[in-house]
Amino acid sequence: MSEPLIVSQAGRVITAVNSNPGRRNSLSFEFYEAFAALLEDAPSCDCGAIVLTGADGFFCAGGNMDGLQERANGSPEFRRAGVDRLNDMIRRMRSLPVPVIAAVEGGAAGAGLSMMLACDLVVASNDAFVMAAYVKIGLTPDGGMTAFLAQSLPRQLASEMMLTGDRIPVERLYQAGVINRLVEPGSALAEAQALASRLADGPQRSLAGIKALTEAASHPHLEDQLEREAASIAEALGSAEAHEGIAAFKGKRKPEWPR
Amino acid sequence: MSEPLIVSQAGRVITAVNSNPGRRNSLSFEFYEAFAALLEDAPSCDCGAIVLTGADGFFCAGGNMDGLQERANGSPEFRRAGVDRLNDMIRRMRSLPVPVIAAVEGGAAGAGLSMMLACDLVVASNDAFVMAAYVKIGLTPDGGMTAFLAQSLPRQLASEMMLTGDRIPVERLYQAGVINRLVEPGSALAEAQALASRLADGPQRSLAGIKALTEAASHPHLEDQLEREAASIAEALGSAEAHEGIAAFKGKRKPEWPR
Amino acid sequence: MSEPLIVSQAGRVITAVNSNPGRRNSLSFEFYEAFAALLEDAPSCDCGAIVLTGADGFFCAGGNMDGLQERANGSPEFRRAGVDRLNDMIRRMRSLPVPVIAAVEGGAAGAGLSMMLACDLVVASNDAFVMAAYVKIGLTPDGGMTAFLAQSLPRQLASEMMLTGDRIPVERLYQAGVINRLVEPGSALAEAQALASRLADGPQRSLAGIKALTEAASHPHLEDQLEREAASIAEALGSAEAHEGIAAFKGKRKPEWPR
Repeated sequence: MSEPLIVSQAGRVITAVNSNPGRRNSLSFEFYEAFAALLEDAPSCDCGAIVLTGADGFFCAGGNMDGLQERANGSPEFRRAGVDRLNDMIRRMRSLPVPVIAAVEGGAAGAGLSMMLACDLVVASNDAFVMAAYVKIGLTPDGGMTAFLAQSLPRQLASEMMLTGDRIPVERLYQAGVINRLVEPGSALAEAQALASRLADGPQRSLAGIKALTEAASHPHLEDQLEREAASIAEALGSAEAHEGIAAFKGKRKPEWPR
Repeated sequence: MSEPLIVSQAGRVITAVNSNPGRRNSLSFEFYEAFAALLEDAPSCDCGAIVLTGADGFFCAGGNMDGLQERANGSPEFRRAGVDRLNDMIRRMRSLPVPVIAAVEGGAAGAGLSMMLACDLVVASNDAFVMAAYVKIGLTPDGGMTAFLAQSLPRQLASEMMLTGDRIPVERLYQAGVINRLVEPGSALAEAQALASRLADGPQRSLAGIKALTEAASHPHLEDQLEREAASIAEALGSAEAHEGIAAFKGKRKPEWPR
Repeated sequence: MSEPLIVSQAGRVITAVNSNPGRRNSLSFEFYEAFAALLEDAPSCDCGAIVLTGADGFFCAGGNMDGLQERANGSPEFRRAGVDRLNDMIRRMRSLPVPVIAAVEGGAAGAGLSMMLACDLVVASNDAFVMAAYVKIGLTPDGGMTAFLAQSLPRQLASEMMLTGDRIPVERLYQAGVINRLVEPGSALAEAQALASRLADGPQRSLAGIKALTEAASHPHLEDQLEREAASIAEALGSAEAHEGIAAFKGKRKPEWPR
């Protein structure tokens, strides 16, 4: 397996590239651990901002289907292990004193969307899409998605995204204010790095204080919600629905949901 | 009195029609109890989604003016009884494991707007209106309206709706994301049923889990707020303002608010 | 020093004009105390609504730079004293039983923006701007800004406003619903007074109840957040960043942030 996270630093900006070739940068335990480790080290790296993007023009397709199938067939503890690592990474993104900026090309689906929403700022290509996705394979959201969407959007729109699992254009989230900049395809990374560079040149204690206050104001119940999501998806992964959903997805056929 | 709720089922979709002929489907104790009973039975009915609409091209005008006047002249316990039944219905809508979709033609006013906002998804005719209304007769909102609007809209816009009681076009709520689909007049029900049918065909445990997580994330203090609203309107109903407001409304004259 | 608050009453509407000539109506201890005193007296003044505006075509530039510099050089207790008075004023705005309507010409920056956001309704000139500003001088927001923005906007947009400190056009906040009316330059006050007059003619107990319910639903953790903000800015004011930020601002030069 190739390196799941490619890290570089230019001045005070770290760029982290999610890389899972041929799988639209779907996520793995290794990615969660690599990004969490980067976040842990960042404060000691003379780093003023982090840009998170995906290799080869795609932000992140979400959970790796093989990994999900393996977990679906595993013990309750094993089903839970993946979401615990994801949640640990999400917590570190939110508690990190420096801003994290997503540069989104292509799409952000499932846990990839949760990861995008966990960023402080989002720059997206105007032809990208987002997709809550989980329901398509009989699962429930994790990585804080339900908390992040509830803070950002009316319940009806958030419910539509999660109950249908359909793609929605980034334009819709830009209008709402979830996405900060819409740019021409191919230029999200450069724009995100420019924004990151500007923030990295700013007053770091002040920026850290603003992020901490914003987090406290925006997500007073995040920890409770991460726990609820984790319990829900760990149970869902063991269900007949998820087994059918994952098998149908891998077989490129329509699922026949058990009743 | 005719049946306040007309229920039919096609496949896994139940359609519930609020019906109060000649009164723009204003609400009664009987309606609250009939809809609460339907919600209680739904899980055992092979039902995957519920569509709620109003008869004769109007969603719901809110509280019945005769009923409100009767309550305004009643004991504190009687004034409180109506809101307790409404709140019981609202709680069941939010805790129901299957999605509830509003099909709105004409308008949704007062408790009718609260009921619309309690739905998971909303399809509305593009010429419909919403109206918080309560202040027009000297009351305060109930049925969770203050909680639902606070989750969905900036406080300033929510305050304007409730402090003025004015009609606002559904287009405004559609832009915000409170309304999911705007359709041609007369087609809200068909569109809502199509959406309901699609969700009813989906993975039911997953959908139930998504709804429960969304509810926990969106309304962590709903119960407190329902109680605050109930105490407030039960008191308001006994006030000189409400007596004047209701009398003026029934007399089709401008109220002269007591100072 | 001239009077920091010019108060007049027409019918049941009080108009309060923030006035600090030559300093774009920047704020002082005297202003906080004068407005808090007005809010305390309002219920006994046959007052049904309050309009808050700024003299000479500018709402409020935020904290007075001389005052901030003096505080930055003071004891921890003195650094904290200003924010305690601001917060006391903000609490009174939110707990006042009558609505407060902002009439914004020119701009609302820093604590001036917090004060605008603390109003129940906002009327703004279409050429005005808002600006979180604090980060520009190495501080963190106060006056409830982080709580008010978290209620109103997706975290990403709120973060952008506060992490960059840049001006944003009022049009953006109008689309979101934070601003209720956009009007031609020069007519914000008249429009705000007309709206105030209409509300002042309404049922006062009902309006007070609506405001109280809206506040409880919108800001269940406001008190915690005011305290967090106060602790954060009191510390930030003593930092090397703030000393440099304030000195650079007064010297009209770019700050060189300490690392």
